Amino acid sequence: MNAIELIKKKRENQKLSVDEIRFLINNYAKGKIPDYQFSALLMAIFLNGMSVNETAALTEAMLNSGIIINLDSIAGAKVDKHSTGGVGDKTSLILAPIVAAAGVNVPMISGRGLGHTGGTLDKLDAIPGFRTDVNLTQYKNLIKKCGMVLASQTKNIVPADKLMYALRDVTATVESIPLITGSIMSKKLAEGIDGLVLDIKTGSGAFMKELKDAKALAKSLINTAKTFDKNVIGIITDMNQPLGNYIGNWLEVVESVEALQGKDIPDLMTVTNKLAGAMIYLGGKASSIDEGVEVSKEMIKNGKAYDKFLEVVKLQKGDISVLKDLSKYPKSKFSEKIVASRSGYLKEVDNYEVGMSALELGAGRLTKDDIIEPKAGIIFNPKIGDKIKKGEIIATLFTDNKKGIDSAKNRIEKALKYSSEVVAKPKLIKAILR
Amino acid sequence: MNAIELIKKKRENQKLSVDEIRFLINNYAKGKIPDYQFSALLMAIFLNGMSVNETAALTEAMLNSGIIINLDSIAGAKVDKHSTGGVGDKTSLILAPIVAAAGVNVPMISGRGLGHTGGTLDKLDAIPGFRTDVNLTQYKNLIKKCGMVLASQTKNIVPADKLMYALRDVTATVESIPLITGSIMSKKLAEGIDGLVLDIKTGSGAFMKELKDAKALAKSLINTAKTFDKNVIGIITDMNQPLGNYIGNWLEVVESVEALQGKDIPDLMTVTNKLAGAMIYLGGKASSIDEGVEVSKEMIKNGKAYDKFLEVVKLQKGDISVLKDLSKYPKSKFSEKIVASRSGYLKEVDNYEVGMSALELGAGRLTKDDIIEPKAGIIFNPKIGDKIKKGEIIATLFTDNKKGIDSAKNRIEKALKYSSEVVAKPKLIKAILR
Repeated sequence: MNAIELIKKKRENQKLSVDEIRFLINNYAKGKIPDYQFSALLMAIFLNGMSVNETAALTEAMLNSGIIINLDSIAGAKVDKHSTGGVGDKTSLILAPIVAAAGVNVPMISGRGLGHTGGTLDKLDAIPGFRTDVNLTQYKNLIKKCGMVLASQTKNIVPADKLMYALRDVTATVESIPLITGSIMSKKLAEGIDGLVLDIKTGSGAFMKELKDAKALAKSLINTAKTFDKNVIGIITDMNQPLGNYIGNWLEVVESVEALQGKDIPDLMTVTNKLAGAMIYLGGKASSIDEGVEVSKEMIKNGKAYDKFLEVVKLQKGDISVLKDLSKYPKSKFSEKIVASRSGYLKEVDNYEVGMSALELGAGRLTKDDIIEPKAGIIFNPKIGDKIKKGEIIATLFTDNKKGIDSAKNRIEKALKYSSEVVAKPKLIKAILR
Repeated sequence: MNAIELIKKKRENQKLSVDEIRFLINNYAKGKIPDYQFSALLMAIFLNGMSVNETAALTEAMLNSGIIINLDSIAGAKVDKHSTGGVGDKTSLILAPIVAAAGVNVPMISGRGLGHTGGTLDKLDAIPGFRTDVNLTQYKNLIKKCGMVLASQTKNIVPADKLMYALRDVTATVESIPLITGSIMSKKLAEGIDGLVLDIKTGSGAFMKELKDAKALAKSLINTAKTFDKNVIGIITDMNQPLGNYIGNWLEVVESVEALQGKDIPDLMTVTNKLAGAMIYLGGKASSIDEGVEVSKEMIKNGKAYDKFLEVVKLQKGDISVLKDLSKYPKSKFSEKIVASRSGYLKEVDNYEVGMSALELGAGRLTKDDIIEPKAGIIFNPKIGDKIKKGEIIATLFTDNKKGIDSAKNRIEKALKYSSEVVAKPKLIKAILR
C-alpha cells in the first residue's frame, strides 16, 4: 500500500477500503505522508466524494489519531449539540444549562469563530475570568458536579483534524461534505457522548447556502453518527438573518442571560427550545421532541436553567456578578446608529455581510491570529417581514475601532432589501432528520 | 490574485484566464507557491480538465519559464518528431538522418526512458563516445553543418516542467491530457522548430491504451501547436507489440543501422517512413505525406540516410567503427531462449509486460536513478497474426544480470496469447490528424 496508488484510486472514483483510509490518515498524522500528496488526495475527495462507509472510516481514523474521552463512570445520558455556525447564534449558551437542568449531561466542547461566523468559546471568553481550558479530570468533575461543561478542545483530541483543517484551508478543499463530516464527527465522538443534536444552518449567513446542501450534510453526519451507534437528530434551521438581535461576543452573552431570565426573543427561543427539546428527548427525559420542548420552556420558567448557567460559570471561574448586573460591563468607545433609507417590508438580509460587519467592528477574526474585542458588535433590530419606516433605527454598531464603522455601516446598508408588498417571515425550522 | 482563489476556480470547473495561469506557473517555478497548493491544483486540473485556450496558456507559461532557442539564423525548415513512447520504438534514430538527408533540418531534443518504455538518449548512449550533452552553440553548429542534432535537454529549457513533472509523479496526476500537452509542447516549442510530427502510440505497450484517448491527446497537442503557429501532423500508430524485433538500447542501435543499410523490417519501416514522410512534407521537400514517404524510401535506397547517420555520430564524438562492424560490440554474459509453448496463431501480446521484461534484464529504469546496461535486451521474433509452431524460438533474452532472467521469461510467456484460428495483423497506422 502506498500513497500514490491510493490517491490514484480516489482520483478514479473508486472506493477506498477501511484499511486504506486508516493508512492514509495515520501516516499523514505521523508526518509520513507529505502535505503535497495529502492535498492531492483532499482535492480528489472533494471532487469525487466519499461513500457512507468511506466517510465513517475517515471519521474513525481521525478519531483514533488522539484520545477518546470515556464518560462511562458518569451516570445518565450524555448529549451534545453541534451547529454548523451562523450569525448571532448563541443557542449553546442557553440550551446547555436548560438541558443540564432537565437532568441530561451536556459534555460540550466548542470551537472559536472564523470569518463571518461566531464561536461559542469566544462568547464564553467575554465573561471575565471564565476558563474553557479545562483538563480531562476537571472536564469529568464538572459534568459529575453540575451536569455540564463548556470546554475548549485540547491538543490530544483528534490531532489529525488540526493538521487536515490547516491544509484544507490553504488548498481550497474546505467545503466538502465527507471532509466536513469527518472533522465534525471525529471531534464530537471524542467527547464521550451517547447522543448528538445537529443544528445545520442554511441561508445567506450559513456555510450551506442552499437547503439541499444542508440536507446532504445533515444526512452524511447522521449516517456517520449511526455507524458509531450514537443517537442523533439533525435539525435544519434558518440562517437568512441573525438569530436573535445581538451579534458580538459580550452582546450575545447579554442576550443569552436575558433569554435564560425569561425574556421572549421569538426566533432565538423557537430554535433554542427545539434543539434543547431534541437533546432532552435523546437524553431520555422526554418521550418526544415536542415533549422535550415543553420541558425546555419549563426550565426557563422555573429559573432552573438560569441557576444552572450561574453555577457552571462560577465553577469554571467566571465572574457571575457581571452576569447579575450586565450594566457593570465595560462599554465600547464608539457607537453608531444605522437608520432605514426607505419605508417598506424587510425582504432580504445578506447575513454573510452582517457577520462580516461584526467582524470589522472587532467581534470576529479574518485569520486565526486576529484578536477579538469582546465588547464589539451589533444590535440588529428588524426581522424579515417587518414593516419598517424610513428613518427608523435598524442597527447600532459598537466598536473601539473607529475605522471599522464606515465599512460595517456600508455593508449593512447594502445587505438589506425592502419591498413595497407584504413579505412572509421565513420558516425557522426547515426540517428534522434522523 | 492568490493561489487559493485560483485552485477554487479550477475546482469549480471554471476557466482560468491567461494571466491566472501565468501567475500560477511563474510563482510555482519561483518557489512562491508551495508544492501542497500546486498539487491540489494539479488534481483539480486532472479531474476537471482544461480548455484549448487554457492548455495553450499553460504551455506558453511553461515555455517562458526558461530559454527559447532561436534558429532563425539557420536557413531552411526545422522539423522535429515527438513520440509518446513505446517498446522497441527506435524510429528517431532512423528518421532523423533520413529527413536531414532529404534537406530538412532536424533539431531533435530527446528524453530518457522510464518504466516500460525506452528513451532515444539511452539508445544514443549505447554508441561508445556519443555525446548528447551539447551546449547551445554546438547545437546550432551541428544543425548548420549536417542538418541535424541529437541532443539532451539542458537545465535552462522549461525548468517549470521538471518541477511539475516531479510533483505529478508523486501525486497521481501524470495521465492528464492538458498537463501532458503542456509538458510535451513547451519542450518542443523551446527547440526552435517550425514544424512537428507527433507519433501518438496506442495499445498495450503505450501510455494511451485506448484509441479514443490517443486521439484526444493528439487533438490537444495539435490544437496547442497551432496556437503557436507551428505546422503539425499527428499520426496514431500501433503499440500492441514491439516495433521491429529488437528491444534494448544497443540492440535497437543495431536494428536502426540495419534499417538504414536497407534491411526490410516491415512494421518498423512502415511507421518510420510514414513519420519521416510527414516531416519531409512539413519541411517543404514533398508536396504530400505520400510523396514524402517515397523520398524517405529513396534516402535509404541511395545510402544518403546511412551516410548522414555516420556523419552525425562522428560529429557528436561517437565511435563509427563499431557501427560499421556491429560484431565488435561487447556481448552480454547471459542469454536465454524462450520457445513457444503451443502451436497456433499469435493473437495478443501484452506489450507492457515485454517492456517490463527488458527493464528487468537491465535495459530500462524503474526509478530515475537506476543504471542502464546498454547490451541488455530482447530479440523478439513473432508478430501478431504469425503462425507459430510449438518449440519455435519466440524470443532471446540478453543480460549481465542472471537474476532477471526468470522473471523476464515468466513475464513474456504470460504476455503471449495464441489462437487456433487465423488472426488478422493489426493496422500499423491508425489515423492521421492535423
